[in-house]
Amino acid sequence: MNYPKIPLAQTVVQLCKAKNIKHIVISPGSRSAPLTIGFTEDDYFTCYSIVDERSAAFFAMGIAQNIKHPVALVCSSGSALLNYYPAIAEAFYSHIPLVVLSADRPEYLIGIGDGQTINQPEVYKNHILYSANLKLDLEDTPKRKSDDEPIIIKNIENRLERFLGLKQEIQKENEEAINLAINKAIVKNGPVHINVPFEEPLYDMVQEPTVMPKNIPPKEISQKIDATILKDLVTDWSNATKKMVLVGVNPKDSIDERWLNDLAEDDSVLVFTETTSNIHHKAFFPSIDKMIWPLNDDELEQLQPDILLTFGGLIVSKKVKAFLRKYQPKHHWHIDAVNANDTFFCLENHIKVSPNSFFSAFLPQLTHHRKSNYKTTWKSVKKHRKLKHSSYLEQISYSDFSVYNKVFQALPDHSVMQLSNSSTIRYSQLFDLNKTIEVHCNRGTSGIDGSMSTAVGFASSTTKQTTFITGDLSFFYDSNALWNNYIPKNFRIILVNNSGGGIFRILPGHKNTANFDHFFETKHELSAKYLCEMYGFEYNTAKNIDELEESLNNFFNTSNQPKLLEVFTPRTINDDVLLNYFKFIK
Amino acid sequence: MNYPKIPLAQTVVQLCKAKNIKHIVISPGSRSAPLTIGFTEDDYFTCYSIVDERSAAFFAMGIAQNIKHPVALVCSSGSALLNYYPAIAEAFYSHIPLVVLSADRPEYLIGIGDGQTINQPEVYKNHILYSANLKLDLEDTPKRKSDDEPIIIKNIENRLERFLGLKQEIQKENEEAINLAINKAIVKNGPVHINVPFEEPLYDMVQEPTVMPKNIPPKEISQKIDATILKDLVTDWSNATKKMVLVGVNPKDSIDERWLNDLAEDDSVLVFTETTSNIHHKAFFPSIDKMIWPLNDDELEQLQPDILLTFGGLIVSKKVKAFLRKYQPKHHWHIDAVNANDTFFCLENHIKVSPNSFFSAFLPQLTHHRKSNYKTTWKSVKKHRKLKHSSYLEQISYSDFSVYNKVFQALPDHSVMQLSNSSTIRYSQLFDLNKTIEVHCNRGTSGIDGSMSTAVGFASSTTKQTTFITGDLSFFYDSNALWNNYIPKNFRIILVNNSGGGIFRILPGHKNTANFDHFFETKHELSAKYLCEMYGFEYNTAKNIDELEESLNNFFNTSNQPKLLEVFTPRTINDDVLLNYFKFIK
Repeated sequence: MNYPKIPLAQTVVQLCKAKNIKHIVISPGSRSAPLTIGFTEDDYFTCYSIVDERSAAFFAMGIAQNIKHPVALVCSSGSALLNYYPAIAEAFYSHIPLVVLSADRPEYLIGIGDGQTINQPEVYKNHILYSANLKLDLEDTPKRKSDDEPIIIKNIENRLERFLGLKQEIQKENEEAINLAINKAIVKNGPVHINVPFEEPLYDMVQEPTVMPKNIPPKEISQKIDATILKDLVTDWSNATKKMVLVGVNPKDSIDERWLNDLAEDDSVLVFTETTSNIHHKAFFPSIDKMIWPLNDDELEQLQPDILLTFGGLIVSKKVKAFLRKYQPKHHWHIDAVNANDTFFCLENHIKVSPNSFFSAFLPQLTHHRKSNYKTTWKSVKKHRKLKHSSYLEQISYSDFSVYNKVFQALPDHSVMQLSNSSTIRYSQLFDLNKTIEVHCNRGTSGIDGSMSTAVGFASSTTKQTTFITGDLSFFYDSNALWNNYIPKNFRIILVNNSGGGIFRILPGHKNTANFDHFFETKHELSAKYLCEMYGFEYNTAKNIDELEESLNNFFNTSNQPKLLEVFTPRTINDDVLLNYFKFIK
Repeated sequence: MNYPKIPLAQTVVQLCKAKNIKHIVISPGSRSAPLTIGFTEDDYFTCYSIVDERSAAFFAMGIAQNIKHPVALVCSSGSALLNYYPAIAEAFYSHIPLVVLSADRPEYLIGIGDGQTINQPEVYKNHILYSANLKLDLEDTPKRKSDDEPIIIKNIENRLERFLGLKQEIQKENEEAINLAINKAIVKNGPVHINVPFEEPLYDMVQEPTVMPKNIPPKEISQKIDATILKDLVTDWSNATKKMVLVGVNPKDSIDERWLNDLAEDDSVLVFTETTSNIHHKAFFPSIDKMIWPLNDDELEQLQPDILLTFGGLIVSKKVKAFLRKYQPKHHWHIDAVNANDTFFCLENHIKVSPNSFFSAFLPQLTHHRKSNYKTTWKSVKKHRKLKHSSYLEQISYSDFSVYNKVFQALPDHSVMQLSNSSTIRYSQLFDLNKTIEVHCNRGTSGIDGSMSTAVGFASSTTKQTTFITGDLSFFYDSNALWNNYIPKNFRIILVNNSGGGIFRILPGHKNTANFDHFFETKHELSAKYLCEMYGFEYNTAKNIDELEESLNNFFNTSNQPKLLEVFTPRTINDDVLLNYFKFIK
């Protein structure tokens, strides 16, 4: 087997292997050649080649979202790593582990006008768990002086002096920094940055590794709750008649069924689940906006909980945020081993264990269910909304609303649904979704920038059929997501094309003026047809409900190439259909 | 006329106007609505709508490259501004003025799990001239409390208190910060970031402005050189027999002809010009690599200058960098009003005036030209290379080399050539170019990420015909450059498609292994045909020299749509043709 000659490259590669980092997403570059060689020569790793670093980083995030373990990114020096940044921020707020390995020049070549050279250390400072700036591996540097062609440069000697020191000490420091960085990514679930300087020559190989870096395993987080705290929580909970559980972004099957059943049986507990929570129970309340939007002040006051218990990631529903900020609970507890947001300005307790650990310690201690009509009241509202929802669907004309309804119904059992941001995720919150489906959406920064690349990355790492549902701006924004060789044949895209940023029509802007159309809605007449031809997708289209139903009939069947279905909807009526819906369902 | 109701938005817009910032590139967003309204409602501004912020920022940079005055960028909160970062870094190292106006949430909504919210202040810290983090405009905040529906939130009051203070004082502080930021961009030529928090409601307008911010004009940089220093420089220069002038990225027509003629007449002065220098004189030495690459150590020693005088931006030629680092001059002077790089590790003097100011103070003081055979010697080498170059062209087969030769010859007089990085810019250095042509290339970070968007931005702001010459990876990487309504009909793209990153075949890698093809060269079979159909470009193609010549014949003629010419070259022979060239011309 071949190894990169530079020991620092061997060190990085071996430590990734020791820590079970198997998936490596590589963008082309010369400075990063030692890493590229190290990863691609070892069959342990599954390497991916993606040219556009912005897409590459979201692709890597899609894999990490699926496997729940860090994925590594390798790029060259210069602006390459800046193109990673949108995905780094998304991973930071979505708590998805990523290890960025950016190659860099040696320090003496930085800031002196060399090509592809920027100020790389700490470049993600605002949105990273840890930044390691490794030191130049000295194995190579002295060679420059003893070459056949000695380099005699006045000041370079001084510059190199800065790096002089015991080679072993530097190796040890670098090993520690790499261990620390990757362990952070594993334990705290988020992105870390390891900046790796290399001196030329970059392409040399050796037959045997010349270093044996030490793997320091990560320390696991304790899943124990302090007994006094637990007792207080049990008391508070047992006494309260109105308890609300609100679940944000949450991986499928992460909560034991029995705890969900326990919560479902309690009449004093309302469980509000977002689409991204991947939690379903007939006694729970999905479609939060559908429940809350039509409520008046009196009704909202009735809904106000005594205790709010939250777990999972960011909340999509703007309505529930506004509601809980205005009608704050007496107690807000958030359950998460690492992170907690004070989303409603009243966070009282951050219980630092996983939701499952919490429930298994907490729920068995409850001796009785508190009598309450809290749930009964809202169950009848839920039932009412459901009926109104159905009758609304019967009367509306062809629009985003009716299209999303059909699309969500058509998804195959046990498949994966990746949603783009803006309209798509918000529409998904209004419908009862197939319980067997796994749902994902980049809610960390809620950007439109990399949803498709994330979906492709996810699809590439699962045998489950993955469908990406998207609006047109998200689709065209991230069209480079299709520029790679890893899209499985069973991958599907459903593109709801309403010729612009339809969500702006729903916001309180100034519709139907030239400025609005151009600078907010960004009206366009593009179609995905040509991109499908370019990237080898089967292209399907629908312009009304009948065509949509027909297209969806065999859309998910086995095929020789991935497929895209472009559904054209009328640009200007979607906002009315949606806003009238909330009036109608009251 | 309408104005945004929020005074802070009025302040930003009015100060941009007062400082002659006319071009505003806007990406869609809701948080930024007050700025979008302010700019688009005032006819003074030319506003552009571009959805993909990465492309938008490079587009803005292309305009600024042309007009040499700041262009403003407007985006929403969240990951939007991270997508600007590649262009920000390019502008930072290329010294192109940009003003980033990022909308943000009020501080109390940051870090608590709200959507599209990241940690925006100082986010470009490593690559920005100045970051202003404006304070929330208080005009609006108290309204939240006196609304029909008063918001009663326990902690929000405390959070708001942080922002309480005298409204006038905050307005004054914000005005000063905006003045400082934009003035920096103007005087120091580079990017600045102004982060602007807004509270809802965002879309309200008023008929009259409610604030009158004070414009503090920028202080101009002195163009005077200290007399003693000047005297020393004149003495050193007069005594030296071997003086080299090396010019990097430099705007066309920025140096007076008479100074160039003065330098050209001096036999002790060699003027090396890069393609991006936009400087031409028959006595000068363009094609630096062509001159230096074949030289042996003795010859290089002969070439070693006593004094090296540099001006302009970054140097493309790796050969001249390696040469001057090894055979350092006794004195290196760099002439630039603001910036200097110690590219050769021997910078002695940074003379802080413009090259024109320097020459007008310096050259008239020289009483005589020093006798020297420095130039004569190298003139004969130049002549020799020229002959060999011509005969090489006669004998090579169809390849990137022969294609670039034809392409550079075909460009119309007085047009603009925008070059992508990697191979394209390097090939351009080997040919004698049309002197009437203005040349640009993003050499700040030398990335492949935004060259096409830069070219489109430039083209949108000039009546001159602009041609973008690019390799395939740069083209596909930045295909969103074509997704906007501002591409003039006379815009041209020449895409040299060698099915991958051909430059890697020239580097000392391990060619023709699967790993190499896949992870370095990133071999592909894509064509620009579908993107041309999608974005309304006339598509032309050539697969041999005859087809290329025919296509070029009328390629630049007036047309109803912009045009692209895709020239397919054989992937695997280009490296041999190029490497043999340097042997042949010896």
